[in-house]
Amino acid sequence: MQSFEPRDPDWQTRVRLSAARQAFMVSLGVELGDMAPGAVDLILPFRADLTQQHGFFHAGATTTIADSAAGYAALSLFPPGTGVLTTEFKMNLLNPGRGDRLIACGRVIKPGRTLTVCKSDVYGLTSEHRVHVATGLYSMICLEGLDD
Amino acid sequence: MQSFEPRDPDWQTRVRLSAARQAFMVSLGVELGDMAPGAVDLILPFRADLTQQHGFFHAGATTTIADSAAGYAALSLFPPGTGVLTTEFKMNLLNPGRGDRLIACGRVIKPGRTLTVCKSDVYGLTSEHRVHVATGLYSMICLEGLDD
Amino acid sequence: MQSFEPRDPDWQTRVRLSAARQAFMVSLGVELGDMAPGAVDLILPFRADLTQQHGFFHAGATTTIADSAAGYAALSLFPPGTGVLTTEFKMNLLNPGRGDRLIACGRVIKPGRTLTVCKSDVYGLTSEHRVHVATGLYSMICLEGLDD
Amino acid sequence: MQSFEPRDPDWQTRVRLSAARQAFMVSLGVELGDMAPGAVDLILPFRADLTQQHGFFHAGATTTIADSAAGYAALSLFPPGTGVLTTEFKMNLLNPGRGDRLIACGRVIKPGRTLTVCKSDVYGLTSEHRVHVATGLYSMICLEGLDD
Repeated sequence: MQSFEPRDPDWQTRVRLSAARQAFMVSLGVELGDMAPGAVDLILPFRADLTQQHGFFHAGATTTIADSAAGYAALSLFPPGTGVLTTEFKMNLLNPGRGDRLIACGRVIKPGRTLTVCKSDVYGLTSEHRVHVATGLYSMICLEGLDD
Repeated sequence: MQSFEPRDPDWQTRVRLSAARQAFMVSLGVELGDMAPGAVDLILPFRADLTQQHGFFHAGATTTIADSAAGYAALSLFPPGTGVLTTEFKMNLLNPGRGDRLIACGRVIKPGRTLTVCKSDVYGLTSEHRVHVATGLYSMICLEGLDD
Repeated sequence: MQSFEPRDPDWQTRVRLSAARQAFMVSLGVELGDMAPGAVDLILPFRADLTQQHGFFHAGATTTIADSAAGYAALSLFPPGTGVLTTEFKMNLLNPGRGDRLIACGRVIKPGRTLTVCKSDVYGLTSEHRVHVATGLYSMICLEGLDD
Repeated sequence: MQSFEPRDPDWQTRVRLSAARQAFMVSLGVELGDMAPGAVDLILPFRADLTQQHGFFHAGATTTIADSAAGYAALSLFPPGTGVLTTEFKMNLLNPGRGDRLIACGRVIKPGRTLTVCKSDVYGLTSEHRVHVATGLYSMICLEGLDD
């Protein structure tokens, strides 16, 4: 993995505050995992109300944490006083969302002044297995004065 | 818009049953809107727990109903005894998810025996305005014996 | 289709000059078709050296004119002194690239100061038939001082 | 990188024959690079007729070899008597296509009976530098009786 230099010494606090202020993330039960500059993991523990008809995580839940992990990975490299918005993304759904929890690993591929390109991989985890549920590519825009 | 011939006379019932059996759709409060063969609308009324930090619909909620509307549009053309899965999609987020409710308009672009290509457009609605929130392209796969 | 107001009175000349200066477009034999603000068509006449193994247009040729048509559609709405770059796109290939020529119809979905979202549809044409070969979604960036 | 088991002992010959029979690949001057099951590199030496207005590789050329490398990576894992078609893909263009040559590295992410998901990364190379030009995600379909 590439190594990145954060431009905001308080990047970890920013990511934490942003996650705490998104009602939808809180209502899904998303938790912050490991963090490094340009790399943020999110964890989504299983709940019955997050499932599709076969009892697996719904693709909407998978997609939501994948996108958020990618967004926070980008945000971790942004200068103070800016915010992040997803402008577009693409996901390939590889396997059913099976597991006790999902982990979404957001990673910056190429940082930029305006656009930052990220990827996000989602895995379904049990105590014994890890399955690759989805992979995605994201364009994140850095906006001046946007309050994250 | 193209006109399509459904291969299952009970296609409307199938779509309704599928929506009712997805716990995540129910917990978000998604409602079925208008339906025609190859075209299904979904409606998501505003709720505070579906928002991001600025009080608009979270992109994860937008994405979830966009994907589901596209999936049901595809399912409406599938033969009896088959089910639908999203294999991949791409979304461009055009405007903040502002409105009393979102409407996602799933439409089949090209039906196929194995893969059906769909689009989905999401609009934010108030009594006075309609804003184009997102547009997406989807590949839906038709699976034998998958119970929708 | 939406109607757009160009910000450069010489937008048609800009598009023509840009197409003429791209060696790859010239070597493929791409021709300009109809143009309106936010809408540019490109035409690619059949040539044996543009084919894949079954004698149809190669997807690479299809993709190239689809992207360029979308780029020119965006450029037609940009202010003077700016240029266009594709930052990302997604294509669904719907049917083999069969025909005497391909036509790519680039259309702006949402103009923006920095990013303009476009779509592009490619059709294969003969004197009797029109087949939908591909559909795509694009993010175009407007760059100050980039010489198109 | 994952390790894959080919189902066709003659997979290398199949890839070579397929590349040789695509007129567009031959006319661009594409060369085969390293190959392993699930991983194929393609090389595109610089030529003035492959450029855009600033003298770099045109995105259409970049896209063409990225797609083909991903397709051959998928084909390398297919059983005898089948062929490969790209059903859809997404590319993020990261840097201008600068270099003496481009190298596209196609890699299988998840093989499947019907659909195989691949990625492809394109780099611009000189004797001193390597720049990441583009990254893409692909869905490849395995078709019975399709002559590659």
